[in-house]
Amino acid sequence: MPAAAAPAATPAVPAGMQWLYGSGEGGASSIQAYHGFRDFVLAAARSRPVNSVVLAEGSTLGAPRFIPCGNRPFAVILDVDETALQNLGYEYDEASRGRGYDAAIWARYEQTGAAAVAPMPGAATALRAVRDAGIIVIFNSNRLAENAAQSAAALEGAGLGPARHGETLFLKGDIAPGSEKDPRRAAVSARYCVIAMAGDQLGDFSDLFNVRSLSVPDRRRAATSAPFADLWGNGWFMLSNPVYGPSLRGGFDDVFPADKRWSDPAGESGQ
Amino acid sequence: MPAAAAPAATPAVPAGMQWLYGSGEGGASSIQAYHGFRDFVLAAARSRPVNSVVLAEGSTLGAPRFIPCGNRPFAVILDVDETALQNLGYEYDEASRGRGYDAAIWARYEQTGAAAVAPMPGAATALRAVRDAGIIVIFNSNRLAENAAQSAAALEGAGLGPARHGETLFLKGDIAPGSEKDPRRAAVSARYCVIAMAGDQLGDFSDLFNVRSLSVPDRRRAATSAPFADLWGNGWFMLSNPVYGPSLRGGFDDVFPADKRWSDPAGESGQ
Repeated sequence: MPAAAAPAATPAVPAGMQWLYGSGEGGASSIQAYHGFRDFVLAAARSRPVNSVVLAEGSTLGAPRFIPCGNRPFAVILDVDETALQNLGYEYDEASRGRGYDAAIWARYEQTGAAAVAPMPGAATALRAVRDAGIIVIFNSNRLAENAAQSAAALEGAGLGPARHGETLFLKGDIAPGSEKDPRRAAVSARYCVIAMAGDQLGDFSDLFNVRSLSVPDRRRAATSAPFADLWGNGWFMLSNPVYGPSLRGGFDDVFPADKRWSDPAGESGQ
Repeated sequence: MPAAAAPAATPAVPAGMQWLYGSGEGGASSIQAYHGFRDFVLAAARSRPVNSVVLAEGSTLGAPRFIPCGNRPFAVILDVDETALQNLGYEYDEASRGRGYDAAIWARYEQTGAAAVAPMPGAATALRAVRDAGIIVIFNSNRLAENAAQSAAALEGAGLGPARHGETLFLKGDIAPGSEKDPRRAAVSARYCVIAMAGDQLGDFSDLFNVRSLSVPDRRRAATSAPFADLWGNGWFMLSNPVYGPSLRGGFDDVFPADKRWSDPAGESGQ
């Protein structure tokens, strides 16, 4: 034990950030998702799908329906943060100061942090291939509409653009008030056949997963069983983000099923 | 602020475990990886590849060569823990007691925890499809050889078997002493054409990534740039594991590039 405590604790990099921003494993996972995304999108565009991958109004988790494509041109919809962009600048500030998420600081980061980002591994190559095939790339983010120019600059600086507010970039409060993304997906679907979506949170695919009454285990069950299980890697593409978001919820009873627990038999004496 | 501190701190579920074991996002990511794995394996088996996806002896990170397949029958190689199996029992014990990894407790878990596991989402379905196509499924794990029977029981109980020690299950110290997995991959490659591998750590693909002199950023760079970047989702399949392992390393200088940092301009006064 040290003789005296250090004057201020030096924060360590949280494990989730080590994995997402620092590890070969996190980088490989992102590249893998974008390889799948690119291959799926190019193949889907060749086969002209009947339905888009966006849920139609009136869908429920038990009975989803997909918006028919008609003859509309093809598009893909991606979330921005930790889907297309690594927010290295903001997360460095948060972790090095040892603080949690702060909406006011994030807003200042949107305004001034456009250079402190990098593309998620594999994203720039995949989006280039998708655009080269004549498919429109649209971003659907809960960044603030008032910072649209700076967010477009962040995407373009990272090699992920173009992004034009109201055309290929939809932000919080666009189309309808609030952070729900379904109204923006519906607006995009009126003009385009959406053949794939990518995100790091279930709300990047449907707001149905964000209904407050859904428990943590029920939300996992809904995402991982029929009818949605088949969509992962087949139109819906998940980027792994263990750093923030609604995925990081739940106590022991939510995360560990009662019938899958184990207790060290040498337990107390083993200490 | 409460009048008195609670008698003992109740540990919270670590964020990485919330994501991996509790979230729909983590479950979706696993299913997506296994969809890609299954589709790739079935297509590769139809096209009879010239080379396996296992690196040949003498390979370096700069100049990898792959073992030629000849006419050997097809196999796939998977890691076990957090690749095929969710170790819910062990991680519950670790997190609920608020302790870190302990090799002695893990060894007791191998011996007595075979019922406290679940398949990783998507794994059981994918392995069934692979075996139905006549392809051999081989596990390569650093679980202890002395607990082979219990580890085989864990895999089989989770619907991922069969696993036979020395035939389709290779463990720590098999073939050669130590935790390196390359000698076991070489032994499998003498009998089979390995058309895909799956793991949650880079060492599940090549021991070259575990060379101690490789810095955290160099290790990420090696995994995410040529010649390895193309393999993710195309023969090498990464399962996202932000809970443990060599992926969770690095200080601020390792994880956050110097040119991608940002500091809140309202900084100190903003507190």
